Amino acid sequence: MALEISRRQQIDDAASALFGERGYAATSVRDIAHALNMQGGSLYAHVASKEDVLWSIVSRAADRFNAEVWLLADESTPPSVRLRRMIRGHVAVVTSAQRDAAVFLHEWRFLSAERRGQMAARRDAYEALFRRAIADGVDSGEFANLDPKLTAMAILSALNGISSWYRADGPLTADQIADQHADLFLNALTAARRTDR
Amino acid sequence: MALEISRRQQIDDAASALFGERGYAATSVRDIAHALNMQGGSLYAHVASKEDVLWSIVSRAADRFNAEVWLLADESTPPSVRLRRMIRGHVAVVTSAQRDAAVFLHEWRFLSAERRGQMAARRDAYEALFRRAIADGVDSGEFANLDPKLTAMAILSALNGISSWYRADGPLTADQIADQHADLFLNALTAARRTDR
Repeated sequence: MALEISRRQQIDDAASALFGERGYAATSVRDIAHALNMQGGSLYAHVASKEDVLWSIVSRAADRFNAEVWLLADESTPPSVRLRRMIRGHVAVVTSAQRDAAVFLHEWRFLSAERRGQMAARRDAYEALFRRAIADGVDSGEFANLDPKLTAMAILSALNGISSWYRADGPLTADQIADQHADLFLNALTAARRTDR
Repeated sequence: MALEISRRQQIDDAASALFGERGYAATSVRDIAHALNMQGGSLYAHVASKEDVLWSIVSRAADRFNAEVWLLADESTPPSVRLRRMIRGHVAVVTSAQRDAAVFLHEWRFLSAERRGQMAARRDAYEALFRRAIADGVDSGEFANLDPKLTAMAILSALNGISSWYRADGPLTADQIADQHADLFLNALTAARRTDR
């Protein structure tokens, strides 16, 4: 059983690398098998279809984002502290699970309509945590009167963009990148308040 | 000749829609021809390959971004005014040439290595305009001492993200979206300065 789980993870890992590099549509089940020194046919002992592999990768990425950020989104935490923690948590996933995150962001549209709908609902619930933190800060006067929806999308787009350029051996650590993004957006939200008054 | 150009544009337009919807790899030359009620074979009278069509779309998107933003990046303009204009210009292209922009952002990796290199150089020169505006503002004291490279990437990622959710019939006009993003990032850059001092 442990071996079986491990084989399944190997398949997801190899597929995540290939989907990220070539895209889902340009990757065949045979390509995935080949990367694992398996026959195409024997891969089907572990997965029902290529789309099943995509679903598995996208789901584990969504699980990672939720596991990292959901608890930090606790509504009793002051909005500026909460949003800073959430930004740091999101960047931690983008940088530590970079391949899965990139597949999650760019390839999820290749899921079947039903699964795409399920994932869209999960993404919306996740984005709502960010909208809520911003809206709470606007309500409490901690933040300027900015549109929580547009601001949440701007923040998440910027953080997700990190997946396209982050290098573990680059000049900035993941923590530094997280802090600088948190500073940027917290400044934006609190500064506008000062300007308004 | 005019007809010929027009046919070529129709091919690019149809391909841009298909690439944006299904991805480059999952779109065949036959699909593009079919969308134009042409035979697959007769499409080859107009284009040499599917990759040529992608190159044409990606190039015209890059041309649009340059045409809109390059003049606004004039270095004699104060950095905060300049950056606001550049953000507005970039959003104008993302929202008015949304399909091409999405193909430019997500499908350019399917170009041949040589063309990918050429496009990477064009993208870098374009991003440098944003890095320069931020660095000039840091130097003049108008902006906080933020990392121009990271900040430019955060801004461009946020603006590019608009291509994934903008709807012409949505609640916000393209101008409103542009202004709100410009406010957000200009606040972030100028606010941090106040905090530093």
